[in-house]
Amino acid sequence: MAHRKLRVGMVGGGGPGNFFGGPHRTAILMDNTAELTAGALRSTKEGSLAEAERLFFKRGYGDFATMMTEEAKLADKIDYVTIVTPNDSHYAAAKAALENGIGVLCEKPLTLTLEESLDLVRLTKSTGLPFIVAYTYTGLPMVMLAREMVSQGDIGEIRKVEAWYPQGWLADRTEDSGLQQATWRVDPKKSGASGCGGDIGTHAYEFVRFVAGLSATEVSARLTTFVSGRVLDDDFTVLARLCNGGTATVSASQVTVGALNDVGFKVIGTKGRVEWSMTDHLNLQVYRSGQPLQVYRLGGDPLPDSMAGYTRLPGGHPEGFHEALANLHKSIQRQILARAGEATPAAYPHPGVVDGAAGMAFIEAAVASSHASGAWTAVAGVD
Amino acid sequence: MAHRKLRVGMVGGGGPGNFFGGPHRTAILMDNTAELTAGALRSTKEGSLAEAERLFFKRGYGDFATMMTEEAKLADKIDYVTIVTPNDSHYAAAKAALENGIGVLCEKPLTLTLEESLDLVRLTKSTGLPFIVAYTYTGLPMVMLAREMVSQGDIGEIRKVEAWYPQGWLADRTEDSGLQQATWRVDPKKSGASGCGGDIGTHAYEFVRFVAGLSATEVSARLTTFVSGRVLDDDFTVLARLCNGGTATVSASQVTVGALNDVGFKVIGTKGRVEWSMTDHLNLQVYRSGQPLQVYRLGGDPLPDSMAGYTRLPGGHPEGFHEALANLHKSIQRQILARAGEATPAAYPHPGVVDGAAGMAFIEAAVASSHASGAWTAVAGVD
Amino acid sequence: MAHRKLRVGMVGGGGPGNFFGGPHRTAILMDNTAELTAGALRSTKEGSLAEAERLFFKRGYGDFATMMTEEAKLADKIDYVTIVTPNDSHYAAAKAALENGIGVLCEKPLTLTLEESLDLVRLTKSTGLPFIVAYTYTGLPMVMLAREMVSQGDIGEIRKVEAWYPQGWLADRTEDSGLQQATWRVDPKKSGASGCGGDIGTHAYEFVRFVAGLSATEVSARLTTFVSGRVLDDDFTVLARLCNGGTATVSASQVTVGALNDVGFKVIGTKGRVEWSMTDHLNLQVYRSGQPLQVYRLGGDPLPDSMAGYTRLPGGHPEGFHEALANLHKSIQRQILARAGEATPAAYPHPGVVDGAAGMAFIEAAVASSHASGAWTAVAGVD
Amino acid sequence: MAHRKLRVGMVGGGGPGNFFGGPHRTAILMDNTAELTAGALRSTKEGSLAEAERLFFKRGYGDFATMMTEEAKLADKIDYVTIVTPNDSHYAAAKAALENGIGVLCEKPLTLTLEESLDLVRLTKSTGLPFIVAYTYTGLPMVMLAREMVSQGDIGEIRKVEAWYPQGWLADRTEDSGLQQATWRVDPKKSGASGCGGDIGTHAYEFVRFVAGLSATEVSARLTTFVSGRVLDDDFTVLARLCNGGTATVSASQVTVGALNDVGFKVIGTKGRVEWSMTDHLNLQVYRSGQPLQVYRLGGDPLPDSMAGYTRLPGGHPEGFHEALANLHKSIQRQILARAGEATPAAYPHPGVVDGAAGMAFIEAAVASSHASGAWTAVAGVD
Repeated sequence: MAHRKLRVGMVGGGGPGNFFGGPHRTAILMDNTAELTAGALRSTKEGSLAEAERLFFKRGYGDFATMMTEEAKLADKIDYVTIVTPNDSHYAAAKAALENGIGVLCEKPLTLTLEESLDLVRLTKSTGLPFIVAYTYTGLPMVMLAREMVSQGDIGEIRKVEAWYPQGWLADRTEDSGLQQATWRVDPKKSGASGCGGDIGTHAYEFVRFVAGLSATEVSARLTTFVSGRVLDDDFTVLARLCNGGTATVSASQVTVGALNDVGFKVIGTKGRVEWSMTDHLNLQVYRSGQPLQVYRLGGDPLPDSMAGYTRLPGGHPEGFHEALANLHKSIQRQILARAGEATPAAYPHPGVVDGAAGMAFIEAAVASSHASGAWTAVAGVD
Repeated sequence: MAHRKLRVGMVGGGGPGNFFGGPHRTAILMDNTAELTAGALRSTKEGSLAEAERLFFKRGYGDFATMMTEEAKLADKIDYVTIVTPNDSHYAAAKAALENGIGVLCEKPLTLTLEESLDLVRLTKSTGLPFIVAYTYTGLPMVMLAREMVSQGDIGEIRKVEAWYPQGWLADRTEDSGLQQATWRVDPKKSGASGCGGDIGTHAYEFVRFVAGLSATEVSARLTTFVSGRVLDDDFTVLARLCNGGTATVSASQVTVGALNDVGFKVIGTKGRVEWSMTDHLNLQVYRSGQPLQVYRLGGDPLPDSMAGYTRLPGGHPEGFHEALANLHKSIQRQILARAGEATPAAYPHPGVVDGAAGMAFIEAAVASSHASGAWTAVAGVD
Repeated sequence: MAHRKLRVGMVGGGGPGNFFGGPHRTAILMDNTAELTAGALRSTKEGSLAEAERLFFKRGYGDFATMMTEEAKLADKIDYVTIVTPNDSHYAAAKAALENGIGVLCEKPLTLTLEESLDLVRLTKSTGLPFIVAYTYTGLPMVMLAREMVSQGDIGEIRKVEAWYPQGWLADRTEDSGLQQATWRVDPKKSGASGCGGDIGTHAYEFVRFVAGLSATEVSARLTTFVSGRVLDDDFTVLARLCNGGTATVSASQVTVGALNDVGFKVIGTKGRVEWSMTDHLNLQVYRSGQPLQVYRLGGDPLPDSMAGYTRLPGGHPEGFHEALANLHKSIQRQILARAGEATPAAYPHPGVVDGAAGMAFIEAAVASSHASGAWTAVAGVD
Repeated sequence: MAHRKLRVGMVGGGGPGNFFGGPHRTAILMDNTAELTAGALRSTKEGSLAEAERLFFKRGYGDFATMMTEEAKLADKIDYVTIVTPNDSHYAAAKAALENGIGVLCEKPLTLTLEESLDLVRLTKSTGLPFIVAYTYTGLPMVMLAREMVSQGDIGEIRKVEAWYPQGWLADRTEDSGLQQATWRVDPKKSGASGCGGDIGTHAYEFVRFVAGLSATEVSARLTTFVSGRVLDDDFTVLARLCNGGTATVSASQVTVGALNDVGFKVIGTKGRVEWSMTDHLNLQVYRSGQPLQVYRLGGDPLPDSMAGYTRLPGGHPEGFHEALANLHKSIQRQILARAGEATPAAYPHPGVVDGAAGMAFIEAAVASSHASGAWTAVAGVD
C-alpha cells in the first residue's frame, strides 16, 4: 500500500448547533494520518453540498445514500465513514456503508432499536468490514489502562461495578430554547425508547463491558421524567445482575444541576479496585489489597504494549476528549490498514458493532423493567 | 443551676477491641463541660467495675440495670447516659434509662427491630426526656451547613438524593480473625436483620432525612452477601420513592476494597445542588444555577446563627470525627440545660429517637423488599 | 506510680478572644489521661482566679510566678505546664517552671529572642526536665509518617525542601478591628522581631528540621510589609542553604487572601518525594522512583511501631488539629511517666527546646538578611 | 480573500525523539483551518526532504534558509512559519522568515541571548508581521480566564505572584541515556545560559506578565545544579520585585522527582486571588473577599466575549495541551486574516515577540544575580 492518508467520509455533523461533527473532524485530522474526503453533512442537498465545501471536504454529496453508492465506484473511495447524525439515521447510514464495502465508525446509541442493531451485527459479520461504535470514553488512556489491569486479574474476581453519568443541562426545559442538541434528544422518534439512558446511560453501561469485561443478564430499572412536559426519561437508574454473578449499578441523569459531564466508574474485585472519573480524567486510582492507594497518572507511568500509539504527549501535558475520539479513529484505521495487508500495530479492541447492540439490549431491557415497576427483566444476548 | 459539669453515664464501651467507647469519652470530655460520672462498661460485673476505675469514672456499676436504678436515687445522678453496646442491648438500656428519668444518647441503629424503636419513641414522648441517636455524621459542620441551605430553599425543590457509604473492611472473612468489631456485626442476633444496612446504610439514609428533610415512602432493595459463609448482607442497595415525589438512592457496602469510610451525599434540587463527601469532609460543594461552583470551607465562611458553638477552631485548623460526636453530646447537653431552666443557646436539631425509629423502618422495608426480589415495599411511618 | 491522671498547669489561655487556650484544654482532656489542675489564665489576678473557676481548674492562681512556687510545694504538684500566652511571656513563664521542677509544653515561637531561647536550652539540659514546643503540625500523623519515611531513607538523599504557610486573615488592617489575635501579633513588643515569620514561618521551617531532619546554615530572606501602617512583616520568603548541601525555600504569608491555614511541605530526595498539605491533611503523597504515585491515607495503611498510640480512630474517621495537639501532650506525658519509672511506650521525638531555639535562630538570621537586602546570612547553631 | 486554508511552514520538528513537532502539527490541523504547506524539518537536506514527504507536507526543503527565500517567490507562499528547533536556531530562522515577509510562531525561549531577541523585536516592529511565542500555557482557557479577571480588577491591586514549574525528568543523568530531548537541553550551546530557567522558568515567569499584567524590575536568583557533571542549572529559584511594587516568586525545577509538568500560579491581590495548576487544569480557583471559594470549570460558566472561539467542546469534555497550542495558532491566524482585510474575530493578545524578549531579559538577569550570589539585579526593559 502506498504512503497515503486514509480517506474518511462523514454523514451528518454539519450545520450550526451541531456538536459532534466538529470533534470528529478534529479527531480525524489530528494525527495527520487521514483526510476529510467525502461528506453528506446536512439534511438538505444544497445545505449538504455547501457545508462540504465550507469544511474543505474533497467531495460533497447531497445525501448519504448517494455518497455511499458513488464512492463505491471510485478508485480512491473512502476507507470508512463517520456517522454523526441523530440516532434515527444511524441504522440506514451504517447499512448503506456496509453494503457498499465501506467501514463504519458510528455514534452511539447504535440504532433506535435492538432489532436494527442486530441487523448491523449480521451485516458486519458477513462483510467482514471494520465497525467501531463511538463510546468515546473508551478511548481515554486511563480507561484503557483500567481495562488492562482488570483483564490481567490485578483486582481479582469482579464483585461489583458502579458506573455513573450525571449531567445537568436538561434540568430545565432546555428543549424549549430551540437548542438543537436538546430538541432531538427529548424526541422519541429521533432518540429512541429512552432519553437519558440512550444518550448517556449507554456510555455508563459500556464501562461494565469494556473495563470489567462483563455483561448484564437481568436488570431492575427505574426511569424517571423529572421535568414536566417531557416524554422521555431524564433520569435513569439501573441495578443489574452480571454474567459472573456480580452486581452492577448504572445510573445516569440529565437533571443533576451543576454536573457537567461527570461520567465515571468503580470496578470492585476480591483483591482490589480501579476507579476513574471524568472530573479527574488524567488519573486512575488503583487500590490493591495491602498496598497504599496508587494513582497512575497519564504519562507518569509506563503503559502496556497494547496501548502503544494511543497517547501523544509527554507526562503532564494533558490530552482530552479529542484525543479519545482520535483513538477510536486510530483503531478503525489500524483495522483498515491491517486488512489491506499493511504492517501496522494491532488495533486496540475498542467497542464494535456487537457492543453497540449490547447497549441497545441493555436499554430495551431497562425500559421494559421500568414499565413493569422495576421487575427483573432479562437482557437479550447479542453475540 | 450551679456552675457544674454535666454528669454522664456510659453503658458498654469498655474492653480491648472496643471502638466506640473511646471516641464517646473523648467527645464527652473535649469541651470541658461534662465528666465521666457512672459506667457499666463491660458484660461482666468484675470487668465492668475494673474498667470504670481504670477509665477514671467516678462511679462504677456491674451492669446497666443497677446503674440506672442506683443513679436514680442520687442527688447528683447522671444527666444522661451514652449507650455504646452492640445493637442487641440498645433497647433494654435505653428503656431502663428513660424509666429512671435519665436522658439518652444512643448509638445507631437504634434497636434490633422497628417494634422496639417505636416503644422507645412512645416512652421518650411520655417522659419528655432528651434522646439523641448517634448518627455522628450529622454532627459534622459541613453536613449541618448543607441542611441549613436546603431548608432555606437555596436549591429549590428536591428531586433526588444520592447517599452512599462504601467501606472495604469486610471484603474478606474478617470475622474469622476474631476482631470484636467484625464478629458481632455479622451476627444477626447482635446486629439485627441487616448487616451492612443496619451498620452503615442507616447513616446514609439519615442524610435523606437530616439534610434533605425528606423520608422514604417505598423502597426497592437488593441486599447481597458477597463473602461466602456470611449470614447477613455485606452490600446494600436501595432505591426509594420520597414523600415529596422525588427519588433517592441509598447504597452501602462493606466489600468495596480500599474504601475506608467514604460516606457522602448529593442533594439535587430544581435550582441547585449540595454535595459532600467524608473524603473531603471540611468542604461543602454548592452549586446554584447560573453561578460558578462554590466551595464552603470550614472556618472560611460565616455559618448561620443556628450553628453557633458547634465549631471550635479557626478556619483551616481541621476538626473531625471527635468534634462531630461532641456536637451530638453538645445538643443533648443543651437540651438538658434548657429543661433545667438554664439560659443556654438552642440545641441544634440533631437526630432523635424518631429518626432512630425511621432508620429501623427503612431497614425493615429494605430487607422485606430484597426478600421479595426488589418489589416496591412501603416504609412504615414512625411519627 | 499509682493509677492517676497527670496534673497539668496552664499559663495564659483564658479570656474572650483567646484562641490557643481552648484547643490545649481539649488536647489535655481528650485522652482521659490528664486533668486541668492549676491555672494562671489571665493577666489580672481577679480575672485569672475567676477564669480558673469558670473553666473547672482545680486550683487557680493570680499569676504564673505564684503558681510555680506554690505548686512546687505540693505533694500533688503539676507534672507540667502549658504556656499559651503571647510570645513575650514565654521565656519568663518557662524559666519559672523549670526552676521549680516543672516540665514545659510551650507555644511557639519559643521566645522573643534567640538569647532567651538559648537560656532555656541550658536550663532544660541542666534540670533534665521534659520540654516540648508546640509546633502542632508535627503532631499530625501524616507529618510524622513523612518523617519516618525520610529518616528510613525511602526517598534517598535530600536535595530540596519546600515549606509553605499562606494565610489571608491579615490582608486588611485586621488589627484595627480590636481582634485580640491580630493586635498582639502585629506588635513587636509582644510578637518579636518578625510578625509573619515568627507566627507561622517558624512552623514552616520546623518541617525542614522535623520531617527532613536537616537544618539551615545560611539564609537569604525577604520580609515584606504589604499592609500600610504595620510595623512587622506580613510576608516572609526565605531561601536557605541546608547543612547537607541541599536547598530549602520557606515561605509564609498573612496576606494571601482566601488562604485559611494552608501549611504544607514537599521533601525532594534523589530517589523519591514526600508531600503533604493541610488542605488534604489526612493523606500523604509519596512518590518513589519508578512506581506510581502512592497516597497513604490515615487509618488506611499500617503505621510504624514508633507511632503506636498516636492515632485514635479507625481509617476514614478523620482526626484533626485537636488530636495533633494532644499528640504533643502525649509525648510530654510519656516522657514524664518514663522519668517516674513507669513502663510506658517511648515518646515520639516531637520538637523540644532545642527545636524552639533553632526556630528563633532561623528567624533572627532571616530578619538580619532581609535588612541587608537579602545578603546570605549565617544561622546560629543551637545544639 | 478566497475561502482557503492558511498555509503553514515548519522549521524543525522532524525525526524520531522530537517532541514539539508533532503537537504543533496537530495544533495546525485540528481546527480544519490550515494545512501543512512547507517543511524544513531536519538538520540534513536528505532527512528534511524525506520527512516532509512522510508527514504529508506539500513542499519539502533541505533547510530553512532555502525554504524562506523560495516560499517568498510563490503566489501561494506560506502565511507563517512554526519554529520548533532547539533554541540555538530560533533566532536565525525567525529572522529569515521576517526578512522574507513571513509571520512567525516560535517556540520559547525565544533566542539564545537577549540581544538576539531585541533584534527580532526591532525586525518585527519594522515589518509589521505577526509574531507569537509559544508560551503554550497561555493558550489554556482557564489561564486566559484568569487574565481576564485580573485585568478587570476582580482581585484588586496585585501584591504577589507565585509561579512554579516543577518537573522530575532530569533528576538523574537522563542526558546519558541518549534521549534527544535531554541532550540538547543540558548543552549551553543549544539551550542558552540557563537550563532549567530557559526551558521552563520562562513559562512560569510569563504568568507574571500574561496573567498578572506585570513585569519584574529586579531579581535575586539562585540557580543550582543538583545532578553532578551537568553544566547548566537544573533548579531555578527567583525572587522578583515587580513594576507595581509587588513581589513575585518564580521557581522551576527539573529534579522534583515524581513531578510531571506541574506548572501553575497564584495571583494575590488586595481583594481576591486567582489560582491555577496544571494538575487540575480544567478548573480555575477564584477567591473574592467575603465570598466562598469559587471554582470556574471549563464549559461550566460563561466566558468573556474576548475568548470566543478559543474553546471547542461542551462543558465536561476536557480539552488539553493540543487545544492550547491550537489557540496560539488561532491567534496568529486571526492576525494574518485581519491583516489581509478579512473580517475575523479579534485575536486574543497571546504573547508576542516582546514577551519572548522579556523572558530572555528575565533569564539573563537571573543568571547574573545567581553568579553574584543572589545580589539584586536589574531586569532589562524590552519594549
